[in-house]
Amino acid sequence: MKQIRIGIVGYGNLGRGVEKAAVANPDMELVAIFTRRNPATLHAASGVPMVSLSQIEQYVGKVDVMILCGGSATDLVEQTPAITKWFHTIDSFDTHANIPKHFAAVDKVAKAHNTCSIISCGWDPGLFSLNRLLMEAVLPQGSTYTFWGEGVSQGHSDAIRRVEGVAKGVQYTVPVEAAMQQARQGTNPALSTQDKHIRVCYVVPEEGADLEKIRQDIVTMPHYFADYRTQVHFISQEEFLRHHTAMPHGGTVIRTGTTGDDTLQRIEFQLKLGSNPAFTGGVLAAYARAAVRLSQEGKSGAFTVFDVPFGYLSPKSSGELMAELL
Amino acid sequence: MKQIRIGIVGYGNLGRGVEKAAVANPDMELVAIFTRRNPATLHAASGVPMVSLSQIEQYVGKVDVMILCGGSATDLVEQTPAITKWFHTIDSFDTHANIPKHFAAVDKVAKAHNTCSIISCGWDPGLFSLNRLLMEAVLPQGSTYTFWGEGVSQGHSDAIRRVEGVAKGVQYTVPVEAAMQQARQGTNPALSTQDKHIRVCYVVPEEGADLEKIRQDIVTMPHYFADYRTQVHFISQEEFLRHHTAMPHGGTVIRTGTTGDDTLQRIEFQLKLGSNPAFTGGVLAAYARAAVRLSQEGKSGAFTVFDVPFGYLSPKSSGELMAELL
Repeated sequence: MKQIRIGIVGYGNLGRGVEKAAVANPDMELVAIFTRRNPATLHAASGVPMVSLSQIEQYVGKVDVMILCGGSATDLVEQTPAITKWFHTIDSFDTHANIPKHFAAVDKVAKAHNTCSIISCGWDPGLFSLNRLLMEAVLPQGSTYTFWGEGVSQGHSDAIRRVEGVAKGVQYTVPVEAAMQQARQGTNPALSTQDKHIRVCYVVPEEGADLEKIRQDIVTMPHYFADYRTQVHFISQEEFLRHHTAMPHGGTVIRTGTTGDDTLQRIEFQLKLGSNPAFTGGVLAAYARAAVRLSQEGKSGAFTVFDVPFGYLSPKSSGELMAELL
Repeated sequence: MKQIRIGIVGYGNLGRGVEKAAVANPDMELVAIFTRRNPATLHAASGVPMVSLSQIEQYVGKVDVMILCGGSATDLVEQTPAITKWFHTIDSFDTHANIPKHFAAVDKVAKAHNTCSIISCGWDPGLFSLNRLLMEAVLPQGSTYTFWGEGVSQGHSDAIRRVEGVAKGVQYTVPVEAAMQQARQGTNPALSTQDKHIRVCYVVPEEGADLEKIRQDIVTMPHYFADYRTQVHFISQEEFLRHHTAMPHGGTVIRTGTTGDDTLQRIEFQLKLGSNPAFTGGVLAAYARAAVRLSQEGKSGAFTVFDVPFGYLSPKSSGELMAELL
């Protein structure tokens, strides 16, 4: 079987996660990693060449799918349309309100250049989205709840670190167990994001900082913390390094509903991830496989996870899937 | 939006479940229920016409999709190929070893008559199969475990009722909690079906029956019980009617694995079903929607759940799905 030739664009946490996934999939060959930084200053864990992003066009014909690992706010909005001119692409665009616009921009380029791009892959958006759709389709009368965590929120951790007097900080989003139990019971409770989650912060203060002021600055911060139950714990540099440098995450999608006879039915999908970027990397790699399959079918354009049959995610043949997994 | 015209073939528990689902989906119109019995002796809960199966061909042009609700052993193996000549079809064929043969037989008819048939829908095979595939594709290094229950196994309940001295009987398949915890821990334990489940039987004995003989006949029954930890509880007719006439079921698919850095990752999909046939009916109805979509794309032939993009299961447009569920 011909190997799928993968390129990675961006070598942050997610890029490293995709690198691990590409190496773990025997049907994939990781060709190169592209970076805006000086490639001479970086070394890929897998030993593949590190290449300047400005040279990406030279890899046309050498890479089948580029997996884009930049951020949604500024990177992907430009990179995905630009790179889809030359390669099939996968991204994890997650600025929810802008997805339709991003989709349209990528679709136009992909159709013009006969490539396939699957946008907004990962676990949310991604696997959680698929489950929300599936659950609603098979159980139309009911309510769906998404809980996030327990896990590190990068955006909220960044917000803490901008507070005066904070040397290091991390924020865990923690689902409220009582709210999860309510969701499971099928009484269709109205639960806001605030009802469902608490925000737990671990902060290493700068020497001599005013701890009470840090706490107040965090818990009253608009958008990020003001509307949530927020806990702030002050810890030492040593404790931070020992316990708070991993990037665990996860979450749960729950739908409870009734069938015509008012019989309660419940569906639940849960992730407990030791490393969010490494897991997300695995999802993006599987969708890279699907992009090649869509293209082999003669398709082009932008796609979301909703458009991709699960069979395209697996290296196994239809016959193998039917025998082993159906 | 044009309604999807549904017919149901077979009016047992599953047929009644599909009936509820067809009524619950506003984009569907239930046209008729077809039966091998004398239709004059039956009344549909929804009030739709009950029609002799021998007249099904007269509904060509009046029904888009026939949802076949017979058993795999003798009904579907004949009905699915026969009825796919005239209509798109959905079945829940679940005799695992014979799926490839059934698929081939249905595929041939469907391609010859330009129809679409999605076979082996339901939750296992069906939603559990999809999860097994997805989990393996996104987390290639790991182990997947399927647990069934707690729920009523019809096959094992039938086996109990064939034992001499048994008036009524029901068998619950119960997952072993300790085995589930082992599966979740990520140590890749080898767990057989027997390790994962116990079999709990509730029996109403006939008057004067030898209880110890009934117990022995059950626990030593080859294939069904001999290799399992089996409990037999004798109960009264009243208790049976009060507590053991529902058809709950469910189960859990768990995959634990590691990414390149040996970080533990876990994915879990769980169903807790108050009524197995009513839930399965909801799944079959969603796939009926997908069969119409496949046909509108110009496709024909047999398909499994692995071939169907999730977007086809929903009545919502791509734009709605992107805005509401992605």
